[in-house]
Amino acid sequence: MSETHVRRRDSLRTHLRGSEVDAILVTNLLNIRYLTGFTGSNAALLVHASDAPGAERGTVFCTDGRYRTQAAEQVPELPHLIDRASARGLVERAESQSDSYRRLGFESHHVTVDGRDVLAASAPSVELVRTPGLVEQQRLVKDEEEIDALRRACAAADRALAELLEHGGLRPGRTELEVARELESRMLDNGAQGPSFETIVATGANSAIPHHRPTDTRLAAGDFVKMDFGALVEGYHSDMTRTLVLGEPADWQREIYDLVAEAQAAGRAAVRPGADVREVDSAAREVITGAGYGEQFLHGLGHGVGLEIHEAPALSQRGEGTIEAGMAVTAEPGVYLPGRGGVRIEDTLVARADTPELLTLTTKELLVI
Amino acid sequence: MSETHVRRRDSLRTHLRGSEVDAILVTNLLNIRYLTGFTGSNAALLVHASDAPGAERGTVFCTDGRYRTQAAEQVPELPHLIDRASARGLVERAESQSDSYRRLGFESHHVTVDGRDVLAASAPSVELVRTPGLVEQQRLVKDEEEIDALRRACAAADRALAELLEHGGLRPGRTELEVARELESRMLDNGAQGPSFETIVATGANSAIPHHRPTDTRLAAGDFVKMDFGALVEGYHSDMTRTLVLGEPADWQREIYDLVAEAQAAGRAAVRPGADVREVDSAAREVITGAGYGEQFLHGLGHGVGLEIHEAPALSQRGEGTIEAGMAVTAEPGVYLPGRGGVRIEDTLVARADTPELLTLTTKELLVI
Repeated sequence: MSETHVRRRDSLRTHLRGSEVDAILVTNLLNIRYLTGFTGSNAALLVHASDAPGAERGTVFCTDGRYRTQAAEQVPELPHLIDRASARGLVERAESQSDSYRRLGFESHHVTVDGRDVLAASAPSVELVRTPGLVEQQRLVKDEEEIDALRRACAAADRALAELLEHGGLRPGRTELEVARELESRMLDNGAQGPSFETIVATGANSAIPHHRPTDTRLAAGDFVKMDFGALVEGYHSDMTRTLVLGEPADWQREIYDLVAEAQAAGRAAVRPGADVREVDSAAREVITGAGYGEQFLHGLGHGVGLEIHEAPALSQRGEGTIEAGMAVTAEPGVYLPGRGGVRIEDTLVARADTPELLTLTTKELLVI
Repeated sequence: MSETHVRRRDSLRTHLRGSEVDAILVTNLLNIRYLTGFTGSNAALLVHASDAPGAERGTVFCTDGRYRTQAAEQVPELPHLIDRASARGLVERAESQSDSYRRLGFESHHVTVDGRDVLAASAPSVELVRTPGLVEQQRLVKDEEEIDALRRACAAADRALAELLEHGGLRPGRTELEVARELESRMLDNGAQGPSFETIVATGANSAIPHHRPTDTRLAAGDFVKMDFGALVEGYHSDMTRTLVLGEPADWQREIYDLVAEAQAAGRAAVRPGADVREVDSAAREVITGAGYGEQFLHGLGHGVGLEIHEAPALSQRGEGTIEAGMAVTAEPGVYLPGRGGVRIEDTLVARADTPELLTLTTKELLVI
């Protein structure tokens, strides 16, 4: 993926030139992974604004001795510094060449108050300038390599659920924990490096708790079974929720299921370039509110996904921003009736010029097991 | 565990009075879990220095609406504030009663540069005072509830390895990944909430890589198989490494195995109250250096374990501090011969007044499978 990372760093430099710093010190490990491909647990990256792709002489990668070999493999195209105190090491490097690094941006949304003081003391000739969120801003719109990783993460989750159902994994008597473990195990079998968050399996009345943690509660005939889960592939997170009924659905179950499905379709359709994130939320929310269940839809419609399971943009009334082509988001309305049960239906999708691309492909018809 | 948490907060107040602040704002979620038992993903805690146990009127817990029920169950003894911006919500509370919260400590090793500005802007009458690491300092010495959780985490790992061996899980032809997944699955069966870090299984030449990630490499007769893994129980992490031989060991294998075992025993014996952490490292290191393998022992002897898999104290030549009774640490010397194979032997243990208490109980005799 080296070409990809060269391109991403070059794109970052375009933003840097607009912010009037000579270089930026990147310390958020997810941002470093995004810009270099490095996956270890200690690193910092100095990106010089005036470097050219293919000749990144002022751009330096730093990690500690444990990762010497891994760094050489994952980041072959950059000069390396080996230093346990990776951020400080790079700032000392900047200090030693302070003519070229007079104004150094740092991730003020990530560096701690004490950490900033250590950096400042190590580089008295360098002016530290706040440059919060520059890389996160860039990460909002996914490139095709990222979308491909998300697609594979979503496929692993789709296949895990299909196999669970084929093998009779959802049946009265099994516990929520057993189902959750089987889903996670089948995601691993299908190429996931792990679950992308703690799998939710909630049966019966538990399905009315939005973020229920699986317990020893046994699935029973007539239950809603809500499963919210995802796979991690190359650092990218998928996110999907499906709700099924064990046996013939009661009228109230079909009513709220159909309502949530309708709202979810409206939310998905609203994920279009130029749409305000609050409008996207409203598109789904109005369907549910119109049916009198507005108070039972307790959360926002969705969130961005990528190297983090929850990232910008938030699709909610509190969110800010506009959908752009290439943003990856979830659409996950729910209706929760305390003591009875709840329904949530969630997909991961990517905004495209016209219709969004759906990455989670499991059917959203009400499955009756 | 409410009594435990009341006692921990009371102990924190003793330290607060020494630091001349009226209260402290705790924002590190692990510190909040330690002080309250809350396990959600958004919280802040305001601890007033002059509160008395059982009447904590100036001590306030804050989380968002998703966790209202969970917080009521896990933190019943404190007043709650529900606010999505949990730290800011508590600072606004302090501002509204600024006579009682004139000097407010904050975790300057954890709060970001931008985050501090948000807090300062929300509370112009409150003086924010840096109080880094106060709760981490307290967490260095584990109480018996914590040691009990660590003991159960270690037992889950011990049993997982015993079952793996009983069921023939280590045999030529299996892959490192298959063995790693079986270990993780058996830890879950034995009460773990998850693995405490990414399980390492390294066979043959891969065993010479200290932090090898498991691959499709197949176990082969004559291989060293190094397994470094642990279980997570109630937020506490166990950590254990065992190295075995598939078939009859060669002379060089027995030589370095016996050497590492001797060094590990010396390191464990040195974990005594009053010992400098560098002396503990040296006790093991001198055994290995004396045999001419000093260059092949690439890392420190060990580290603290608890709510984090790696926490203070570091048992290494770069570490600082003195062992106290109740500290939980690992002892994990290794000798790595590139291209051939390596041995690491690691236990989790607790410093006691006399002999340390061993928590990982799997034999350290050279197992020949």
